[in-house]
Amino acid sequence: MQRSVFRVAFLAFLASAAPKIWAQAPGGSKPASSNVRNAEYPLVSPDGRVTFRVRAPTAQKVEILPLIGLRANGLGKGAYEMTRDSEGFWSVTTPPAVPGLHYYSLVIDGVSVADPSSETFYGANHEMSAIEIPEPGVDFYLPKDVPHGQLRIFWYLSKVTGEWRRVFVYTPPGYDIHPRQRYPVLYLQHGGGENETGWPKQGHVNFILDNLIAAGKASPMIVAMGSGYAVRAGEAPSPVVPASPGRPSQEVSEAVEEVTVKELIPAVDAGFRTIADRSHRAMAGLSMGSVQTLSIGLHHLDTFSALGVLSRPPVEDFNPGTAYGGVMADAASFNKRLHLFWWSAGTAEEGIDTSVKATTAAFDKAGIHYTFVEYPGLSHEWQTWRKSLYDFAPRLFQW
Amino acid sequence: MQRSVFRVAFLAFLASAAPKIWAQAPGGSKPASSNVRNAEYPLVSPDGRVTFRVRAPTAQKVEILPLIGLRANGLGKGAYEMTRDSEGFWSVTTPPAVPGLHYYSLVIDGVSVADPSSETFYGANHEMSAIEIPEPGVDFYLPKDVPHGQLRIFWYLSKVTGEWRRVFVYTPPGYDIHPRQRYPVLYLQHGGGENETGWPKQGHVNFILDNLIAAGKASPMIVAMGSGYAVRAGEAPSPVVPASPGRPSQEVSEAVEEVTVKELIPAVDAGFRTIADRSHRAMAGLSMGSVQTLSIGLHHLDTFSALGVLSRPPVEDFNPGTAYGGVMADAASFNKRLHLFWWSAGTAEEGIDTSVKATTAAFDKAGIHYTFVEYPGLSHEWQTWRKSLYDFAPRLFQW
Repeated sequence: MQRSVFRVAFLAFLASAAPKIWAQAPGGSKPASSNVRNAEYPLVSPDGRVTFRVRAPTAQKVEILPLIGLRANGLGKGAYEMTRDSEGFWSVTTPPAVPGLHYYSLVIDGVSVADPSSETFYGANHEMSAIEIPEPGVDFYLPKDVPHGQLRIFWYLSKVTGEWRRVFVYTPPGYDIHPRQRYPVLYLQHGGGENETGWPKQGHVNFILDNLIAAGKASPMIVAMGSGYAVRAGEAPSPVVPASPGRPSQEVSEAVEEVTVKELIPAVDAGFRTIADRSHRAMAGLSMGSVQTLSIGLHHLDTFSALGVLSRPPVEDFNPGTAYGGVMADAASFNKRLHLFWWSAGTAEEGIDTSVKATTAAFDKAGIHYTFVEYPGLSHEWQTWRKSLYDFAPRLFQW
Repeated sequence: MQRSVFRVAFLAFLASAAPKIWAQAPGGSKPASSNVRNAEYPLVSPDGRVTFRVRAPTAQKVEILPLIGLRANGLGKGAYEMTRDSEGFWSVTTPPAVPGLHYYSLVIDGVSVADPSSETFYGANHEMSAIEIPEPGVDFYLPKDVPHGQLRIFWYLSKVTGEWRRVFVYTPPGYDIHPRQRYPVLYLQHGGGENETGWPKQGHVNFILDNLIAAGKASPMIVAMGSGYAVRAGEAPSPVVPASPGRPSQEVSEAVEEVTVKELIPAVDAGFRTIADRSHRAMAGLSMGSVQTLSIGLHHLDTFSALGVLSRPPVEDFNPGTAYGGVMADAASFNKRLHLFWWSAGTAEEGIDTSVKATTAAFDKAGIHYTFVEYPGLSHEWQTWRKSLYDFAPRLFQW
């Protein structure tokens, strides 16, 4: 009898809940860490399924669109059509997403905008939503109870561009306590469509370095993250050209090179207690930033002694004998000039992984020393670059 | 003849341009400084009219909605309906806006979202668009070629909330160069719906202090900007309750008070070279933050010796004899305990200006010393608070 009452009640519950069951998130789902404060949605399930929800009573069509293209997206590649309930809430639950941070847009009647429930992240040349999918057992990029360095926002006046330029600078734990200690510097470049907030915000650069330094795995270092864009004073900005397979080198304008070498580095050397020589200076970057790293770094080996090349966009017929003014033509001499020539890619990066492997094969043939790390299943996204920094930073300044 | 040819060509131009003339921005309009890089729109005209534009070929209705309510908005109070052209671009030009930064939403078929062309600013509990209207001849909050301090992002682990809390800390120019110098500290609180990014991002706190210090108008000081929200570890977050006329005090949870006094201040004193006594410690805040400043400050006069109360939400029947546990009941004694009791409001702040004046009238009657500065025509917005900081900071730590 008791059982029967329970059963009736349960069926009544099911019936009342039925119209909304499609909108239910999988059991155990929790608000994403990328949500704004107190936003209940998006929810992430323990196996990485994401439930999005938005109120849009008078809209005709609402979708979730992962940022796709060169940036193959761990959230999926097609748009997810959302379904409307009787109260005007639209929702959808995705299949399990790859761990990491995935840019996405909310598309309301054809207009792509940021999801108001998400923090925003500068990507694809505007402030985008993104969803953070935790990776079980992986916490090297999360804050822990270890000594923390600081992220500093530093400004310098550029004569090249005629503007105040913003730089994010990580200083390691103890920087203020040991006022005579000087540190090596890693210059770290963002990708195309992103800006100088990418590494600190999407990349968690400060927590990665804090954790590496606390574990004794990396040397205390300064990390300087400036903008990868520069337009000469008085010139019109060129149209936005994200790095793409056919034209990766277009992004390395002379203005970017001049700002980096002649203005950014001196400003950081003047503003922070750096060890201002090539042996204690490295450069690395992701995607467009890797192209900048190669071009600026290899043309200024008097300035840098280590380079990190993360997810380099595809190039055709890379020839170490002639590339970058022939700097690698004499392999033995080139190998002596670089302490570290570090490359990485995710296996799910369309075209990139293959092209990088073709380049490293050419290095092998030419006798160029390098390190290459590959991340299984990872794509053209921040989880690849967080892992790259985690693997690259410990190798720096150990010579 | 020449003239006639010119005239025909000109009329032909007008004719071809005619369908778009409504969408033309006023002459001399320029992209707003609040736009993301390379975004052409919104445009601001020399007299402050704003032309918004967005592509939405399949939307039924597109509007621009200034953030209104308690936050009377210098952009206007009603929604601006946008007009569609044949290519699916929607646009509208507003009447002249008040100088300053005005939050707004793009409304697409009834859904309020951030304008993808705008940088985003955390307000009303999510990342919003905002439009910056320059104030002719006023540049105290813009970067100038003077020595710059740094904005630092600092984290501390709170036992009260069980979370890592983020603090923005301004350190004055020379902080790193003079490693034995210690500095007074201003704790600066954001408003309801905003967060710890408000003062650095919307408020330009670093440029205001840089300029004041360079002009010799303010003492070099540290400014610490933490979150005005706190939920005890294990407790559910309370629903978002923005400060409002009827319940301004609800926002001062015991958790916020405990975090501020027992955790934030010790963390800043440990992490920075502060002068850790009440004479060199001040607190100020805007709107919800002013309520926190009054409540926390007046209950901890052993900790703070100066308070800044910016745009305090209206309160009824304020009685200095009984308010805040009767701390002001003995005016002569109270006056000796505070070096500075500084209040401000804009004349266009609905209800606020009147209520603050009623409070200061009660102070006059009770013999409580205070300073009150009023900003003609300014509303519950950042221009009021930028000006308040510019006027308040020079008074600090001059005793």
